[in-house]
Amino acid sequence: MLEDLKQMVYEANMLLPKHQLVTFTWGNVSGIDREHNLMVIKPSGVEYEDLTPDKMVVVDLAGHVVEGDWNPSSDTPTHCVLYQHLPTVGGIVHTHSPWAVAFAQAGVDIPVAGTTHADTFYGPIPVSRPMTADEVATDYERQTGTVIIETFRSRDIDPDQIPGVLVNDHGPFTWGQSALQAVHHAAILEEIAKMAYHTWQLNPQDIAIAPHLLDRHYLRKHGRDAYYGQTRHR
Amino acid sequence: MLEDLKQMVYEANMLLPKHQLVTFTWGNVSGIDREHNLMVIKPSGVEYEDLTPDKMVVVDLAGHVVEGDWNPSSDTPTHCVLYQHLPTVGGIVHTHSPWAVAFAQAGVDIPVAGTTHADTFYGPIPVSRPMTADEVATDYERQTGTVIIETFRSRDIDPDQIPGVLVNDHGPFTWGQSALQAVHHAAILEEIAKMAYHTWQLNPQDIAIAPHLLDRHYLRKHGRDAYYGQTRHR
Amino acid sequence: MLEDLKQMVYEANMLLPKHQLVTFTWGNVSGIDREHNLMVIKPSGVEYEDLTPDKMVVVDLAGHVVEGDWNPSSDTPTHCVLYQHLPTVGGIVHTHSPWAVAFAQAGVDIPVAGTTHADTFYGPIPVSRPMTADEVATDYERQTGTVIIETFRSRDIDPDQIPGVLVNDHGPFTWGQSALQAVHHAAILEEIAKMAYHTWQLNPQDIAIAPHLLDRHYLRKHGRDAYYGQTRHR
Amino acid sequence: MLEDLKQMVYEANMLLPKHQLVTFTWGNVSGIDREHNLMVIKPSGVEYEDLTPDKMVVVDLAGHVVEGDWNPSSDTPTHCVLYQHLPTVGGIVHTHSPWAVAFAQAGVDIPVAGTTHADTFYGPIPVSRPMTADEVATDYERQTGTVIIETFRSRDIDPDQIPGVLVNDHGPFTWGQSALQAVHHAAILEEIAKMAYHTWQLNPQDIAIAPHLLDRHYLRKHGRDAYYGQTRHR
Repeated sequence: MLEDLKQMVYEANMLLPKHQLVTFTWGNVSGIDREHNLMVIKPSGVEYEDLTPDKMVVVDLAGHVVEGDWNPSSDTPTHCVLYQHLPTVGGIVHTHSPWAVAFAQAGVDIPVAGTTHADTFYGPIPVSRPMTADEVATDYERQTGTVIIETFRSRDIDPDQIPGVLVNDHGPFTWGQSALQAVHHAAILEEIAKMAYHTWQLNPQDIAIAPHLLDRHYLRKHGRDAYYGQTRHR
Repeated sequence: MLEDLKQMVYEANMLLPKHQLVTFTWGNVSGIDREHNLMVIKPSGVEYEDLTPDKMVVVDLAGHVVEGDWNPSSDTPTHCVLYQHLPTVGGIVHTHSPWAVAFAQAGVDIPVAGTTHADTFYGPIPVSRPMTADEVATDYERQTGTVIIETFRSRDIDPDQIPGVLVNDHGPFTWGQSALQAVHHAAILEEIAKMAYHTWQLNPQDIAIAPHLLDRHYLRKHGRDAYYGQTRHR
Repeated sequence: MLEDLKQMVYEANMLLPKHQLVTFTWGNVSGIDREHNLMVIKPSGVEYEDLTPDKMVVVDLAGHVVEGDWNPSSDTPTHCVLYQHLPTVGGIVHTHSPWAVAFAQAGVDIPVAGTTHADTFYGPIPVSRPMTADEVATDYERQTGTVIIETFRSRDIDPDQIPGVLVNDHGPFTWGQSALQAVHHAAILEEIAKMAYHTWQLNPQDIAIAPHLLDRHYLRKHGRDAYYGQTRHR
Repeated sequence: MLEDLKQMVYEANMLLPKHQLVTFTWGNVSGIDREHNLMVIKPSGVEYEDLTPDKMVVVDLAGHVVEGDWNPSSDTPTHCVLYQHLPTVGGIVHTHSPWAVAFAQAGVDIPVAGTTHADTFYGPIPVSRPMTADEVATDYERQTGTVIIETFRSRDIDPDQIPGVLVNDHGPFTWGQSALQAVHHAAILEEIAKMAYHTWQLNPQDIAIAPHLLDRHYLRKHGRDAYYGQTRHR
């Protein structure tokens, strides 16, 4: 069942330690089959070195296990909410990568400090508001997803153009058209968080780049007139 | 004598360089056999690459060598005091891991800056008070253990819920149900110290997370209603 | 065509991941054949692990592809401008190495904080002025080169003595007599940016070294009376 | 000639990249044969991967090459001065390791922020005064050694108890009874510089440890009553 997706989600999970985005089991990747509305996700608390494609868990969007011998990631309900509200998303990643976590814990957006950020994210990486005691007490992981969606709606941010968020006092979620692209975004988010941190320490004033530079860099890699890479030439 | 425990303590010691928690020989792991009240600990000053299970030293809780050709770690008396006062503890680790040491040297608790911390430690990692000249002059290593115990008692902290401490101007000790779990806690303490440091530089105000978020994350992994991982499902 | 140069540019590109100067495909190296006024450069957006010498693209100094099946780096026009204005330069590197980017994003020159810097760069690494909306809108990559040249002319800096620059809010470019030397300069620039950053945090006053120390270190490795290394002895 | 010493100096040099203390060729190790007053040192500007024991250069204490096909390190005169004034020293190391350089560039002693420092160095690592234009103009490398010796004499520091120094705006030199011990000290100096830097950022007040704690840690590893390690037991 969904063997190709399991394989891809497995490989995407294995990229987390390769890119040094996880300590122990602190991260998970999922992918969705939009035709069947089924999601494949890492089992909870399993070490990466013990992971195999067949340990991936198949879950429906209500969070019920459809196939698999293992508990799915405890963050499964967050993934479900995101897939429900973000119809273009094919894969989701959650990590505790340390530079992104530093911003999440500080409750501060990652500003667009330079073109490295602008090449992938079309604006600051938003940090969600703190969750209330009620939200944390009941359906916590589901509410985490709801607060993420609220962050994008209330600030009028397009989740396709800024495919990542910092959950307040927690850590980053990223997404993409596939599980592999979501991991790519997770690695970039970590790298730009590190760069923004050091920029901040050197010069906290006027950290954000000019809007015209943001536009140029984002749009030369994304959208109709993109000219980076090999897509148009070959 | 205690061959299984020696093997486990050996393996736990070898995890310190694997997790990049030690430079040279600056760390040691012990484990206890509660039935015989005997402790197994790393020999003093031996390089990790030269370590073997049979070089582990068996010591009683007064610190006397019961078996072994090597001097036990010079920190052995500290381990002894901790085992005497913490009856649920099965293993203890001491390192000079650099981020934890930075907080120890600064004389500052590691605050609960986010959920990564809350997943394992149910509150700030306390730093002990500075030791007096008298404490340092006589039975220094034993007094180190006494000051650790005093830290938990005077601040009413449960050492099972916060299985680690920073000895002032020195470095971290962690513990757990086994030597392996103690190492796990040592690695997590180092990672959360790093994250807290950077959070602090970004936003020193209100660094601590909300109590309801601390509760949720700690309790979803510990205690009766824990639901993280595979324990309940399989 | 230009097989030796392709081989060298390939090898120079492969040094970028070896020296940990690139994440994903964020960097490129070129080399020039001054006799034929042809440049060899990395293809755009190709992963380093997939790179081979025959994938290198041959381009003329107007930026037109002369040979090769791949799009050249999107930064090709910047390289072209630099080769046109810097006649002694044989190779050029662009990266997003994180410490250099931090200074570029902060809009701050890398000061000559010590002899490590002075051994290679005969003064601060200049940061260019921000590019205007007009410059970014039209011929952006070409204008990037123009602004780099302007930086050296307006501040009267000799690009042979300071073979590198920080493009404002973007990142470093370095150059040298060959592609390999340009990579060498890129790696040194990253290391001295890291050192200067930490010096700055410890003591922001009087960060620059004395002019006589700068002279001695630069000149013992460069120019007529250089005495470092093996050139004169063997 | 001096084959054993060449072998040891070669091995000590190769430990510099192993301990990540050098970038490119920015470091050198020497050892001395006190019987013949001859010193063995790394050749200048040779990559570590190209180093072999027979490339080590034999030099007398006036700095003249006695044996070897290569130029000795350009820092050779500094080593000579140190050997002349420090009769107990058997090996010397110079690096540009980045944390130590940050303090040297900041012109700030590395304070004894904790027991990790106190275990090896019996007080702050001193930074030398800036060198004058005259000192830099003539016999620069020799004068570097003279200023190091002046630093220890004028501040009444015992170079056996604090086997290292930061040359102002330059970097660290360390020494020991052998070339291998000097490298050991270089690695420790780098680690404690990193720890002190982060301590400083967390809490710049009262960074130094209590004198009784410094005494205890230094003396339990050094001198007559040392009890760390295996020396007394076996």
